[in-house]
Amino acid sequence: MIYTSQALEILIGELSKLPGIGRKTAQRLALHLLKAGSEDADRLANAILEVKRKIRYCSVCWNITEKDPCGICSDPSRDHTAICVVEDPSDVLALEKTNEFHGVYHVLGGALSPLEGIGPEQLKVKELLTRLKDGVAEVILAMNPDVEGEATTIYLGNLLKPLGIRTTRIARGVPVGGDLEFADEATLVRALEGRIIVE
Amino acid sequence: MIYTSQALEILIGELSKLPGIGRKTAQRLALHLLKAGSEDADRLANAILEVKRKIRYCSVCWNITEKDPCGICSDPSRDHTAICVVEDPSDVLALEKTNEFHGVYHVLGGALSPLEGIGPEQLKVKELLTRLKDGVAEVILAMNPDVEGEATTIYLGNLLKPLGIRTTRIARGVPVGGDLEFADEATLVRALEGRIIVE
Repeated sequence: MIYTSQALEILIGELSKLPGIGRKTAQRLALHLLKAGSEDADRLANAILEVKRKIRYCSVCWNITEKDPCGICSDPSRDHTAICVVEDPSDVLALEKTNEFHGVYHVLGGALSPLEGIGPEQLKVKELLTRLKDGVAEVILAMNPDVEGEATTIYLGNLLKPLGIRTTRIARGVPVGGDLEFADEATLVRALEGRIIVE
Repeated sequence: MIYTSQALEILIGELSKLPGIGRKTAQRLALHLLKAGSEDADRLANAILEVKRKIRYCSVCWNITEKDPCGICSDPSRDHTAICVVEDPSDVLALEKTNEFHGVYHVLGGALSPLEGIGPEQLKVKELLTRLKDGVAEVILAMNPDVEGEATTIYLGNLLKPLGIRTTRIARGVPVGGDLEFADEATLVRALEGRIIVE
């Protein structure tokens, strides 16, 4: 398109590289930024640059952090004998929001996915095994309930079994607030399998 | 949330100000930018800054442009006696993609919407009237087919009638590739009203 501005074309191109943002949405976002005040656009641009400059990975749990080790790993009030293994930093955020888990985390950086070329070497599996040496009582596997997460859970389960550390996985079942009618078969099967005694 | 990085919080906050981007999507985008290479994030941040620095409004048609007057207004091969009035710069892009319109544009910067406090003074209506002084043969009203667009079309139609300039509006009807079965009543009514003789 010869009439549109080149700067705008570049911005639309960069925005459409983001996940879930197609060309049309990118165009809408770009035109919004154009309409918005200069300070708003400046703040967004600076926030992007700051985040890349300030944030690194915690050398203990591989969660994102501004200081190393991260706030959770350096907090003495947390239970360092319980490690919850998750795929991504966003999973830590989700679990922290519950305020129910007081142990520490280990972020794998993804899940096993042979098709995408992600094996145990691409994940922080070796780093997890190193952490297990000193007095860890329980490893909680909290992978996403999909094929890759399932494969990762099974792989880690087999890896941890010989070490004699209690290894658990989070329950799969009908989501709270959901409706049995709309739950898929796989979820209902897991919910039945995981049933507990009413007390 | 005390454990998450402040820089990340700021970026999520800025991203969720964008239209159609909620807190969850903003979090996903922010974590993607964090994972992406530093050059990718730099390019996006710079593209945002560049677009605000370089782009201004064309003083003739009020479309966005890097030079004033814009490429369309300064193109002698375009028909300057036909002005297509649209709401937003994105509408110009959409019409230019058809390669069917060879006139020039006038971007109002929105549509009449009393509820949002947008009257004729907030739009480039006065500027349109000024342009009509020198030899304009036709004004094509190409507003969005919604309530605000309809109100704007009627308002401009009444305003232009006394000037004796041929004023047209784009056709409303069933979209090409659509299915009569799924067209709503209002669209079908417009399609019937706008029927033309088969030749």
